[in-house]
Amino acid sequence: MSEPTQPHSAPVLGRWGVAADAITLPVDLLELLTKALGVRGPGRPVPEPSELELPAPRLPAAARAQLSAAVGAEHVREDRQTRVMHTRGKSLADLLRLRARELDDAPDVVVAPGSHDEVLAVLRVCSEHRLAVVPYGGGTSVVGGLEPRRTGFSSVVALDVRRLDRVLEVDAESRIATLEPGLTAPQAEAQLAGHGFTIGHFPQSFEYVTVGGGAATRASGQASAGYGRFDERVVQIRLATPQGTVELGRAPKSAAGPDLRQLMLGSEGIFGVITSLTVELRPLPEERIFDGWRLESFAQGIVALRRLVQDGPVPTVLRLSDEAETAMNLARPTELGAPGSGGCLAIVGYEGTAVDVRACRDGATAVLRECGAELDPGAGEGWARGRYKGPYLRDALLDAGALVETLETATWWSRLSHLYEAVGTAIRESLSEQGTPAVVLCHVSHMYRSGASLYYTVAAAQLDDPVTQWRRAKAAASDAIIAAGGTISHHHGVGTDHRDWYSREVGELGVRALRAVKDALDPAGIMNPGVMLP
Amino acid sequence: MSEPTQPHSAPVLGRWGVAADAITLPVDLLELLTKALGVRGPGRPVPEPSELELPAPRLPAAARAQLSAAVGAEHVREDRQTRVMHTRGKSLADLLRLRARELDDAPDVVVAPGSHDEVLAVLRVCSEHRLAVVPYGGGTSVVGGLEPRRTGFSSVVALDVRRLDRVLEVDAESRIATLEPGLTAPQAEAQLAGHGFTIGHFPQSFEYVTVGGGAATRASGQASAGYGRFDERVVQIRLATPQGTVELGRAPKSAAGPDLRQLMLGSEGIFGVITSLTVELRPLPEERIFDGWRLESFAQGIVALRRLVQDGPVPTVLRLSDEAETAMNLARPTELGAPGSGGCLAIVGYEGTAVDVRACRDGATAVLRECGAELDPGAGEGWARGRYKGPYLRDALLDAGALVETLETATWWSRLSHLYEAVGTAIRESLSEQGTPAVVLCHVSHMYRSGASLYYTVAAAQLDDPVTQWRRAKAAASDAIIAAGGTISHHHGVGTDHRDWYSREVGELGVRALRAVKDALDPAGIMNPGVMLP
Repeated sequence: MSEPTQPHSAPVLGRWGVAADAITLPVDLLELLTKALGVRGPGRPVPEPSELELPAPRLPAAARAQLSAAVGAEHVREDRQTRVMHTRGKSLADLLRLRARELDDAPDVVVAPGSHDEVLAVLRVCSEHRLAVVPYGGGTSVVGGLEPRRTGFSSVVALDVRRLDRVLEVDAESRIATLEPGLTAPQAEAQLAGHGFTIGHFPQSFEYVTVGGGAATRASGQASAGYGRFDERVVQIRLATPQGTVELGRAPKSAAGPDLRQLMLGSEGIFGVITSLTVELRPLPEERIFDGWRLESFAQGIVALRRLVQDGPVPTVLRLSDEAETAMNLARPTELGAPGSGGCLAIVGYEGTAVDVRACRDGATAVLRECGAELDPGAGEGWARGRYKGPYLRDALLDAGALVETLETATWWSRLSHLYEAVGTAIRESLSEQGTPAVVLCHVSHMYRSGASLYYTVAAAQLDDPVTQWRRAKAAASDAIIAAGGTISHHHGVGTDHRDWYSREVGELGVRALRAVKDALDPAGIMNPGVMLP
Repeated sequence: MSEPTQPHSAPVLGRWGVAADAITLPVDLLELLTKALGVRGPGRPVPEPSELELPAPRLPAAARAQLSAAVGAEHVREDRQTRVMHTRGKSLADLLRLRARELDDAPDVVVAPGSHDEVLAVLRVCSEHRLAVVPYGGGTSVVGGLEPRRTGFSSVVALDVRRLDRVLEVDAESRIATLEPGLTAPQAEAQLAGHGFTIGHFPQSFEYVTVGGGAATRASGQASAGYGRFDERVVQIRLATPQGTVELGRAPKSAAGPDLRQLMLGSEGIFGVITSLTVELRPLPEERIFDGWRLESFAQGIVALRRLVQDGPVPTVLRLSDEAETAMNLARPTELGAPGSGGCLAIVGYEGTAVDVRACRDGATAVLRECGAELDPGAGEGWARGRYKGPYLRDALLDAGALVETLETATWWSRLSHLYEAVGTAIRESLSEQGTPAVVLCHVSHMYRSGASLYYTVAAAQLDDPVTQWRRAKAAASDAIIAAGGTISHHHGVGTDHRDWYSREVGELGVRALRAVKDALDPAGIMNPGVMLP
């Protein structure tokens, strides 16, 4: 049984996670990067905090005094280390810009309130002084969700929610728990395990994400086929907004008007700060089993996994690599570079009671065999060992001078192969036109009865300006997603990176409706300005 | 196998359904009404349309000309029959006020557009002339959703969507279908059955509801444990608003911002008119089996059914009558008055492939037996025969001089028994204070992992002003619901009846957010004024 892991020490600057977890690339892979992609040697190194120059903090003295009165002076931090560690998130551009020592997005101050009322107080001060507020949890955004627009604001406040880290209530009969937003996923899981429960939210960023961040960005974990998305599991939510408190959710489901919980989930801090959320729990599984299955082709694999998700039995984890990703062994980052075999690798996982796991596994195994799949011994465990390793791998590849990033989308089953081709082609063509041939790998990461998501990993050689290089490729991919009818994000969110395409996705009136809500709850427009809305 | 039925002819005025389906009350029950409730003889009869006096239509001539140009003169109706048949919905107050010949809510004109573009054109005309617009589908609202506020409007337009009755597309691979809003549930089921699919939305109002109305009010059917709520099944939605078209939904799930589909679902026509919706389909079941189970008490039944919904296997239908409802046989309206036995009746239904039905039934049967339940032969089929009969029964009881209505709410499992007692007590006390002892029956109608809904049926003798009598009792029930932390509606909606309690449920900022969206999409405020928002 593979247990979710917990981080051991404080994260390091400009990289994912802690130093001890860093990945060293195998020599074979380095040679492949040189030969196949033309990678020309090491990328810019990550600087030490002491090497970095920061703009002087611009916080007005009156605001500082009021913020200190609201949360205590020790929770109003303007030191370099704190500001640097709250600068942007973990997108490729974020990492590259840190390596380039660009710190223009650093907050002027980091404020850490300790209660809902303190958050309200902070937002009042920030409204009064027109300070832009960036809610900050795990800092794991990969879509520019932590880069507010500074225009029109005297300074930027990172509102760190990590002091709000309590499990407020466990209601075992209703199988719900009320959590504060700053709990990381491992912290929440550890505490709930003591009550015999799990949330079952295991995104690749599991080790560092906060539950508040998961709700604010509509995150989805690797076990979503069985546990559902994180946003589907949130039944109650409380926000502190500049205009006061919003509390929503009195029952699992309601017909009392539009579901306003769903307006707050995915709002990425533009309306307010989530200060508590109540999530559905599931019993801690007795067993976790991950099988690897080999299928002849991506198309054959899609047919097999679609059959499982539409007609059952539905496993807990469903994941299907395309031929290229399978050949690179990317589903098992710790085995990357080892020779992959042909076809496509599917990961099919089961969690639950021993009886339920056996019944589901027997049923799914029969379906998979009927669809021509063959068991690939050890591949499931290999995936489970490496399931949180992708971001570490990216850091190692950036060190080596490669450009590596992921992006994702989703659509209906009938449009999936068209979307798959269109996005892959757009990325390859854009990078090729820029003179850097690319490796584009893909897997189906989340499946529903009516459709599925596609998750791409892209690698190429870094050009002199890799940020612009990637922005061009990403724009081409995003254009292709919108043209093919896909959503601009299935589980990463909008942030600033997807803002323009998001507007095209929801249309002018969709944007106008959201803007109206924002103006009602945040009339000073201080909450995460420039994120999501133009 | 019990098939959903389809209506045979046009509905009659002031009653549910068609004349042929009317219920005649057994003599025993009439005696019981007299003895136990003090019912004093027949209620006011339903008038013939020809007996009714209507206010003269107030539609300005210029508006009439423009509406006729938009949809064709034959689809702009001001005749008495048409106006009367579009007056209000099917709540107790609606029915009593029709019997009292109160027709002040009659629309001035009924307009029936034939396409999305025609709806847009109608809304432009109505915005220009400040005509209030009431979107009208099956006319089955039981919460005053079809009673717009007239203040400030030159006249009221009922926008009848029933000409929009096509299945636009069936995507068998994605198991989704795009429907126009005016399709009734039986029409949609009949057409989709030709493709081998079902929606699985079987509310008590099944015979007459439209799919657009189901989406606009977040309806939920009797088979929600298996098929999910109707609003959960809508993956794409198009609205015509006074400001133009809103189209939402490009994938089963998305992290691209708040889920704006969920802002339109349940919006009850206050933002615009749903002109198409794409719903998830399921394979047409090979089998439908409904079992009746007898449990010692409501509390014991709740434990048993909660165990099924939390730990599985999860049947398609889960329903549990309390002791009083069981004693009255209300779960089987066609057998009402027959002597009921003790304990509580649970209905547990299964739909799907023969293999899946057998597996689920075997598993659920074992759990129910473990929980002390005993099979009640014939009770399941009895429920299935009478499952759409409740509204016909109400008409018969109104004829007899009784006051009969239903109301519903939901909350978390841990609060369910408190809510159950609080609402029942509030209703009984209010009616008792008014001098009419009441029978209050209840069942758990929909179950989720984290909670469940409660559905009450209330009967008493009619006083001279039965509308006021019920409004008082309903207000007491609604106060009790909000005080006990329940939602003001689990599947009936807000309308005008629940508006004040809805404001308390979502709070001042929730209302402000919705108002902001309404102002953005409907700046003239013509869409269903007075519904949902103050």
